Amino acid sequence: MVPVKVPIAKEDRPSSRAQVAINKRRLLRDLNAVSRIGLGDHGSVTRLVFSIKELRSRQLLIHLMRQADLKIHVDRIGNIFGRVNGLEAKAPAVLAGSHLDTVLHGGKFDGTMGVIGALEAVRTLKENKIPLVSPVEVVCFVGEESSRFGYSTLGSSLMAGEVHSRDLSNAVDAQGTKLEDILSSMGIYRDNLASLKRDPSTVKAYLELHIEQGPILEAKKKPIGVVTSIAAPTRFKVVFTGQADHSGTTPMEMRKDALVAASELITAVEKICRRFSSMDKGRVVGTVGAMKIEPGVINAIPGKTELSVDIRSISAEAKRQVVRLVKTRTRDIARRRNIGVDILPIRDETPVPLDKRLIQLLKDCCADREVPYEIMPSGAGHDAMQIAKITPAGMLFIPSRRGISHSPLEWSDPKDICVGTQLLLDAIVRVANEKI
Amino acid sequence: MVPVKVPIAKEDRPSSRAQVAINKRRLLRDLNAVSRIGLGDHGSVTRLVFSIKELRSRQLLIHLMRQADLKIHVDRIGNIFGRVNGLEAKAPAVLAGSHLDTVLHGGKFDGTMGVIGALEAVRTLKENKIPLVSPVEVVCFVGEESSRFGYSTLGSSLMAGEVHSRDLSNAVDAQGTKLEDILSSMGIYRDNLASLKRDPSTVKAYLELHIEQGPILEAKKKPIGVVTSIAAPTRFKVVFTGQADHSGTTPMEMRKDALVAASELITAVEKICRRFSSMDKGRVVGTVGAMKIEPGVINAIPGKTELSVDIRSISAEAKRQVVRLVKTRTRDIARRRNIGVDILPIRDETPVPLDKRLIQLLKDCCADREVPYEIMPSGAGHDAMQIAKITPAGMLFIPSRRGISHSPLEWSDPKDICVGTQLLLDAIVRVANEKI
Repeated sequence: MVPVKVPIAKEDRPSSRAQVAINKRRLLRDLNAVSRIGLGDHGSVTRLVFSIKELRSRQLLIHLMRQADLKIHVDRIGNIFGRVNGLEAKAPAVLAGSHLDTVLHGGKFDGTMGVIGALEAVRTLKENKIPLVSPVEVVCFVGEESSRFGYSTLGSSLMAGEVHSRDLSNAVDAQGTKLEDILSSMGIYRDNLASLKRDPSTVKAYLELHIEQGPILEAKKKPIGVVTSIAAPTRFKVVFTGQADHSGTTPMEMRKDALVAASELITAVEKICRRFSSMDKGRVVGTVGAMKIEPGVINAIPGKTELSVDIRSISAEAKRQVVRLVKTRTRDIARRRNIGVDILPIRDETPVPLDKRLIQLLKDCCADREVPYEIMPSGAGHDAMQIAKITPAGMLFIPSRRGISHSPLEWSDPKDICVGTQLLLDAIVRVANEKI
Repeated sequence: MVPVKVPIAKEDRPSSRAQVAINKRRLLRDLNAVSRIGLGDHGSVTRLVFSIKELRSRQLLIHLMRQADLKIHVDRIGNIFGRVNGLEAKAPAVLAGSHLDTVLHGGKFDGTMGVIGALEAVRTLKENKIPLVSPVEVVCFVGEESSRFGYSTLGSSLMAGEVHSRDLSNAVDAQGTKLEDILSSMGIYRDNLASLKRDPSTVKAYLELHIEQGPILEAKKKPIGVVTSIAAPTRFKVVFTGQADHSGTTPMEMRKDALVAASELITAVEKICRRFSSMDKGRVVGTVGAMKIEPGVINAIPGKTELSVDIRSISAEAKRQVVRLVKTRTRDIARRRNIGVDILPIRDETPVPLDKRLIQLLKDCCADREVPYEIMPSGAGHDAMQIAKITPAGMLFIPSRRGISHSPLEWSDPKDICVGTQLLLDAIVRVANEKI
């Protein structure tokens, strides 16, 4: 018998304010249980995507979802969905989650907290029988980190239909394993990438709780950040080609030192980005993080340097301006020093604004519980950035001690984790039960 | 019967101007024969000190010396001396030579040309029966290059009595072989290092023909350089310690970027040295050739940089001034950026002036043959720098194409090689037959 869909009358709609509290002990216990998978020296955690450790962490999550009596679905790439049905079983679902994979020698909180936090929120709602109109799904995305294949937000990009075959062809890990080979072993090929996209009509919204990975909340002494947008990187490589010469025999005025050229550029990147550093100027950040020097010995003038420039902003326009200024400066330096230069693009992404209604809803959740919050952009990329392409997305941050992440020193206060998870629960209920 | 020493009457003294020409074909043939030992990709030559290839090149030299009927002596470290006696058999000898070892993937001319050039000069004198008052010795010094053990001018330093046991204790090659172990296998120990010093009373002077390894002669279109002094390096390491952070989430004003600090220093080294670049200011050169960056990935602000500073000058005072300015600047940068800094000394040597009378004699030799020459310092170190400590030393340079050395691209014109060798012959005769 086909169930007859009876629309819920306005006065009968469940409340969107659930006065129910998460189980803090259980939350922290499960967070710890996941962290023990891949634990290494100095408390570091390593769960590279598709490694045995990462697969074990996903199995643990499935086990915890089963314990909580969620309806489990795993898609072809391995994204996990643990669902509770709502009163309107066929309504689009509210998704909440993050990722379980980590960087090499990373920390316990990046990603994991968002997955376990969402799990805790949903199982609290379930065991307290809080009525939900829309279905809610706890999500774990595969391969958010780029550490292994240089390709980030893999699972969420596939779900958003944002992966193109050309993106994957260069993705190879340090051992020479091709990402494409792993995908094809799971039945994912160039010609069926699009089939992994989730039908947007089945999703109402996406919420993600994450550590800030930056120093702002700590500096402002706020336990919560409501994220307005996700800054996207523009990355390119600069190769200066001068002339390697003997450091003792080549007079200063006859040199073509590729390292001094690179150094001029590095200080220029800092200077230019500082001019665009304030919030109203787009909070641009620019970093040269890696450099190769040839020949790289104490007694030779560097003949070649290769450096990576990473520029991010929440404002596409500000980023474009900075990138233009940096590239112009790069060519100026090379011209003035009479050396060669190449600028090779790596990635050029557009900043992602998050959903305005969800931002307001998250602010309201904070206000209801009288939690001080900071309105802020995200400098780092997240799964939300991809999912935002198919559904309204919102993000909450909690503080990172000393702003450190991707390191065994990564740390967030358990109190903040609990506050964040409680607010996530509140938000899930409102999104599930309100019209947004 | 003890030979009675009969002093040669002034009027009987052999002429110091020998109108005899070297055998150019033989010179270039033997230079080529040596270059084939250790020949690698792209015409590079690798004969690291105490390697099989380097030992084979020494054997070839002994063979050539024997063919030329020189009296061969090899000291304990392996320095080779091929002698022709003079009319005054017991008079102090005129030494001429250089070294046969090379850097990794070096060229054909560095060192080798000075040894084979001296051999050609002496065998020409011998076969033409040019009378010589003082004995003359062709010398090949062991281990002039620092490539294998980080220790340069090993053989000539030992001969000059300039090696101290503390200098050797850190000398280890990339495979972990200790220089001390190699030396002890040859009967050289910490307590008998001094016994390798040659009695200065047995040496009248030292002459060395070498490639310039710099661009000056080529730029000035002169086939010969008469070297006035050898610049000595002051080397130190600078370690900046900032804070590694996420490149996306750390605002510009909250960063402690160790690479931007290093870049400021690198540009400052260039700027300061340029102020002392002219000949009358001491022709100071300063180079940052190597740098380590941690963590050194595209998406992390560098938390630590370690760079090597190499400053050289022919003027001890100018070098001291520049080193002081660079170190002050280093500390200023760290203070202003509120990051840590350490300055670790590596080496601090004093520039070596060459013998004034020999400089004049070499200029006269050039003038006699109407060869245009340049009076110039040597930016690179040479065996002459050590031997100058026990006897008057003089050096001749020939041009290096594009100033390149320590590279397969190292090249000197055969014509220049022949001119240099001819002038070396002329100089040997004058030094052997004149009072200097």
